[in-house]
Amino acid sequence: MKEMRNAICFPKGFLASGIHCGIRRNKKRRDLALLYSVNMAQCACVFTQNKIKGAPIEVCKDHLQNHQAQAIIINSGNANTCNINGFSVAEKMCELCAQELELKPEDILVASTGVIGQELSIDPIQNNISDLVKKLSNEHGSEACEAIMTTDTQKKEFATTFHIGNSECHIGAIAKGSGMIHPNMATMLAFITSDVSIQYDLLQTMLKEVCDETFHMISVDGDTSTNDMAAIMCNGQAKNAMITQKDHNYQIFKEALMEIGIALSKAIAKDGEGANRLLTCIVQEANHSYIAKTIAKTIITSTLFKAAMFGKDANWGRILCAIGYCEGEFSIANIDVTFISEFGMISVCKHSFACPFNEEQATKILSSDEVEIHINMHDGSSSARAWGCDLSYDYIKINGDYRT
Amino acid sequence: MKEMRNAICFPKGFLASGIHCGIRRNKKRRDLALLYSVNMAQCACVFTQNKIKGAPIEVCKDHLQNHQAQAIIINSGNANTCNINGFSVAEKMCELCAQELELKPEDILVASTGVIGQELSIDPIQNNISDLVKKLSNEHGSEACEAIMTTDTQKKEFATTFHIGNSECHIGAIAKGSGMIHPNMATMLAFITSDVSIQYDLLQTMLKEVCDETFHMISVDGDTSTNDMAAIMCNGQAKNAMITQKDHNYQIFKEALMEIGIALSKAIAKDGEGANRLLTCIVQEANHSYIAKTIAKTIITSTLFKAAMFGKDANWGRILCAIGYCEGEFSIANIDVTFISEFGMISVCKHSFACPFNEEQATKILSSDEVEIHINMHDGSSSARAWGCDLSYDYIKINGDYRT
Repeated sequence: MKEMRNAICFPKGFLASGIHCGIRRNKKRRDLALLYSVNMAQCACVFTQNKIKGAPIEVCKDHLQNHQAQAIIINSGNANTCNINGFSVAEKMCELCAQELELKPEDILVASTGVIGQELSIDPIQNNISDLVKKLSNEHGSEACEAIMTTDTQKKEFATTFHIGNSECHIGAIAKGSGMIHPNMATMLAFITSDVSIQYDLLQTMLKEVCDETFHMISVDGDTSTNDMAAIMCNGQAKNAMITQKDHNYQIFKEALMEIGIALSKAIAKDGEGANRLLTCIVQEANHSYIAKTIAKTIITSTLFKAAMFGKDANWGRILCAIGYCEGEFSIANIDVTFISEFGMISVCKHSFACPFNEEQATKILSSDEVEIHINMHDGSSSARAWGCDLSYDYIKINGDYRT
Repeated sequence: MKEMRNAICFPKGFLASGIHCGIRRNKKRRDLALLYSVNMAQCACVFTQNKIKGAPIEVCKDHLQNHQAQAIIINSGNANTCNINGFSVAEKMCELCAQELELKPEDILVASTGVIGQELSIDPIQNNISDLVKKLSNEHGSEACEAIMTTDTQKKEFATTFHIGNSECHIGAIAKGSGMIHPNMATMLAFITSDVSIQYDLLQTMLKEVCDETFHMISVDGDTSTNDMAAIMCNGQAKNAMITQKDHNYQIFKEALMEIGIALSKAIAKDGEGANRLLTCIVQEANHSYIAKTIAKTIITSTLFKAAMFGKDANWGRILCAIGYCEGEFSIANIDVTFISEFGMISVCKHSFACPFNEEQATKILSSDEVEIHINMHDGSSSARAWGCDLSYDYIKINGDYRT
């Protein structure tokens, strides 16, 4: 698994493009992306659980009834959410694509990200759709990746290779963060391509399982967005024997997909709005996997803990406080807390009580741009992992006046 | 009801004191308070629901088995939580008090607030307990109020008068915020005195009812503290006919107590760490009171919404987003959002869709230091109110390095 330019076009038979069409005022920012498979692909999706859903989410659910798609059009700069004409604009985006690509509108998915509640004009999209399609290429994956970014400061592109029998298969993926991120459901936009051949129902199951361990375990600010989705298209171009059951080959593909999901999740958390450091919280020996997940997510969501991590302050009391307000039944009698980074490791709490530690050493360890927080509950055998980031002045700066 | 100096001593028969004993390094900061009733008082409490509880909470639960107390000792600068000797230190604080006041330790309650996980030495308390008791006076209520403050910038002291029959009764109250505030349970320290005469079980019921509408409806940062408690002592010195049932007199007292609870809650939210403005979210026409409360609390807890309010940005999409991720069954089809302040009112969302509004006017309205957010769900007849504050650079500054 590696970070690479043009990752989304790494699997066979996928083309992409990304342009500036004018949804954003800044002409240097791409704002319209297209992903395309040369043949019809099996397509599975996981959508936000927010009751207020972007119009594109509704359209995608409609179009996915046959579990297939051949293209995805995505705009940034406007979420097309809470707009009275939102549904028809999202439908129109698919229709315009379908015309240019000589497909049916139902073969196209659509996603939008940006400000909620401002009308999305179809004009810049309509005026530039032929250019967008014309630019489709197996070398333009990074342009598409750029076009879906909002407050992201880094592109998030990863790819990997795996083998099913003698067939070499590939996965490519792009994602965007970086605010309104919370692990109630697919918490961002993530698009994944693969040339593997797999039955739809297995693909949907696998995507859900991978999301539960990856995208659902990241939090930047506790706010679950209205427009989140993770979509995977598999076009079968690798010519492997189709995966039709949960066998060894299913596991091989799932491991590769999990790696991609983890890489994207870490990249999204690390590039969280205003973030200075990636926080990985690893909970071990909890009495249930649900409890382990809850504790890990609650810690990386705690505003006070995140502010302490910004200040490199080993204020572990806030970690115990956050564990204490987690729902569920579990023992709080025997909790250990350890910080680990490239600069060393330090135990700050043993058996739920303070243990003496060197503050200078702790500050040094917490000054790394990747810090792990290890929690041992000594209460069972379940573990979980969640990713987040510190809370900085810049988060507030970015969000104090996002719309202008 | 009014804000007043020395409020906690406003009811008959209550004395208070507040000194610097040396728990804090800063000699100008008082850090030890004592509240005292000249006779035994009925005492009701509501405690934090955090599983990790401060040692003083455990001691109070122990001492309250007879539903009575005559004094409360409170320190700031150290939460006495997650300390291996925490329980014995908290007990010792009560014993020292009891000796000086010639009471039993069980007649004393104890509370601590400050850093979690640093050992609380009994020495400064032991060395200064006689001074603390000697300074007890019906004029030293504000000194006690000062001594319980942590990151608060303002003292929070309120008092009111009401009549039961011909007897004039009084309530006095002090509270401290201002971080680790979230409405899962009594979310701070609040101490209330009254000279009313009332049966214990009714007092406990009333306190719980009032907390549910007041202290449980405020959020500064979503973190439920380990040491929160609201305590009320009623010593009967007003000589009213004892309140023994939920009758007219019960309602009169409850209304007065509710006013005090609301005043303290607003003061705590307004003085939230780093806050520039008090946000009051009023939800109307929800389909259930539980839903109304959930929506109101979720909005004032949303990090993104709070950052927008810091920036005076009428980004109502974040409000709809927050409503959308509330748990529970309700309609999202017909939501209105209106901002109101001393500078006017403005509708920004009608029937869940954008409605045109003047951005300059909205910014003006949001620049007030008290802003109301009115949500009409058009989905039933239940309403609720919650209080919070904006999220500013200063919150992070305060919490980035709280312990040093």
